[in-house]
Amino acid sequence: MNLPTFAHIRDAAVRIAPYARVTPVLRSERIDALVGAHIVFKCENLQRGGAFKFRGAANAVWSLSDEDAARGVVTHSSGNHGNALAIAAQTRGITAHVVVPEGAVKAKVDAIVAAGATVHRCAPTTAAREAKAAELVASTGATLVHPYADPRVMAGQGTLVPELLAQDRRIDTILFPVGGGGLASGCSIAAHGMNPAIMLFGAEPEGADDAARSLEAGQRVGPFTPDTICDGLRTLIGEPNFHVLREHGVTVLRVSDAEVIAAMRLLWSELRVVVEPSSATVLAALLRNPERVAGRHVGAVLTGGNVDLDDLPW
Amino acid sequence: MNLPTFAHIRDAAVRIAPYARVTPVLRSERIDALVGAHIVFKCENLQRGGAFKFRGAANAVWSLSDEDAARGVVTHSSGNHGNALAIAAQTRGITAHVVVPEGAVKAKVDAIVAAGATVHRCAPTTAAREAKAAELVASTGATLVHPYADPRVMAGQGTLVPELLAQDRRIDTILFPVGGGGLASGCSIAAHGMNPAIMLFGAEPEGADDAARSLEAGQRVGPFTPDTICDGLRTLIGEPNFHVLREHGVTVLRVSDAEVIAAMRLLWSELRVVVEPSSATVLAALLRNPERVAGRHVGAVLTGGNVDLDDLPW
Repeated sequence: MNLPTFAHIRDAAVRIAPYARVTPVLRSERIDALVGAHIVFKCENLQRGGAFKFRGAANAVWSLSDEDAARGVVTHSSGNHGNALAIAAQTRGITAHVVVPEGAVKAKVDAIVAAGATVHRCAPTTAAREAKAAELVASTGATLVHPYADPRVMAGQGTLVPELLAQDRRIDTILFPVGGGGLASGCSIAAHGMNPAIMLFGAEPEGADDAARSLEAGQRVGPFTPDTICDGLRTLIGEPNFHVLREHGVTVLRVSDAEVIAAMRLLWSELRVVVEPSSATVLAALLRNPERVAGRHVGAVLTGGNVDLDDLPW
Repeated sequence: MNLPTFAHIRDAAVRIAPYARVTPVLRSERIDALVGAHIVFKCENLQRGGAFKFRGAANAVWSLSDEDAARGVVTHSSGNHGNALAIAAQTRGITAHVVVPEGAVKAKVDAIVAAGATVHRCAPTTAAREAKAAELVASTGATLVHPYADPRVMAGQGTLVPELLAQDRRIDTILFPVGGGGLASGCSIAAHGMNPAIMLFGAEPEGADDAARSLEAGQRVGPFTPDTICDGLRTLIGEPNFHVLREHGVTVLRVSDAEVIAAMRLLWSELRVVVEPSSATVLAALLRNPERVAGRHVGAVLTGGNVDLDDLPW
């Protein structure tokens, strides 16, 4: 299995430094008191493109040889990865082809177009998306950049961990949302590369708890129908990503959509950040499981802020 | 006139450090390109209490002798200063009396109560507010903490400047909104205390351009009726504050409410921060006057983020 090592993550950090933002960390005295721990929120919602996805996309784009880069990159994602790849391609002056299913949110597609990518429409099925992306790879010679199962993407996402630990050296616990597992696997490798004693937690919606079920079963479960407002976490965890989470002893905590919405509101009222439902899973998991982190120094990743302010879920 | 010096600001920075947040700075490649300058946004919207006001309030509260502190503090403000003083008093375990006019926004009053302050209602006139505050000073012995004309408050607000210059040493220009002038005067003294060559700009809504008119006339204009969406900037600039702005050669730039709303949207789309209309004046001023800052390194203060997400002005 093609997995990144901590050395790849260190390389990625250097590679993306000219393009990515060093995102700030924020703390709230009140949230600390509610949970009974010292919590540091890593604000990837303030990353370029509004989500951590830019790290992985930029690492993939800037890992290519000049020759490969000249033929462009391809992905199928109407969400944050598609937008991140479009922006990353723009930083290198190359073409990004983004396959977008019919029915994708118009604002997200507009952002992808604004970043200079070429949008290709397809039917709203996984098979159609993969077929269209493969067709583009064949016809253009562009490189496919998978949203989470790609080792360059995993390494790029992992770069937030050294940044976070430099911002607060006392962190002994890291908590991240789990979707396809690109962030979760990159952060797990980076965290244990820096300090094998760091405790790792994932957060997952009850309506898309495939990673929790997979870890409990000891093998990756099959496709499922997600039922959650956390649109970034509806994906089945990737095979390499699942492998990393199991190897690194990640415990995945489940949260309800109602808890997610309450956590979004609390993040706004206490920290003045607006995050996606997917991001708020980490605070929801802390509030539901305070005994898991009692007295610990927790780095919690707020993954993205690409929400429509005119259509908040409350 | 009782004005703070740079030494008072340095003292304030040490005094409030255990309580205030070091707020992050954010940058946008696209906004830099739009303006033609290197712009660093100082995110006081992410300060404790959601606004820079906590700096001044904390400095005032922690400047008091134990004996004075025991009698509490008083102010008349239903806005960010009232909330900031309530939180600051809470950090010292003392009483805050906040005089609130009838008709004040319920959410803001609720926040003041939640921070443990005692709220006193009065008629919605300046005279009634000042009379009620004076009455409380007389009856309780509490110390009045004026929102902007108080030298401890001005010094506290100025603490954001050394923080900002440490975050980006190339800054040669500082831009802040101007309301009563507590922030503007504190930042002017701090900036020129660190580097007399720093260029200073204020931003003011056209419908509350009393500081611009006062500086143009060479003397402070009288009371006026504000007409602007920027609720934090409807105040007449204070006498000592005006004096400082004139001494430090601050140029105040006017912006329209429409420009402010457009700037709020741009700050959200590019930086994923939600700020008050008052804060967005700085970006509006940059977009309207790019020739003033061409090629410069600008520190622009985003003053607060206490908006109702369910009632955004667009």
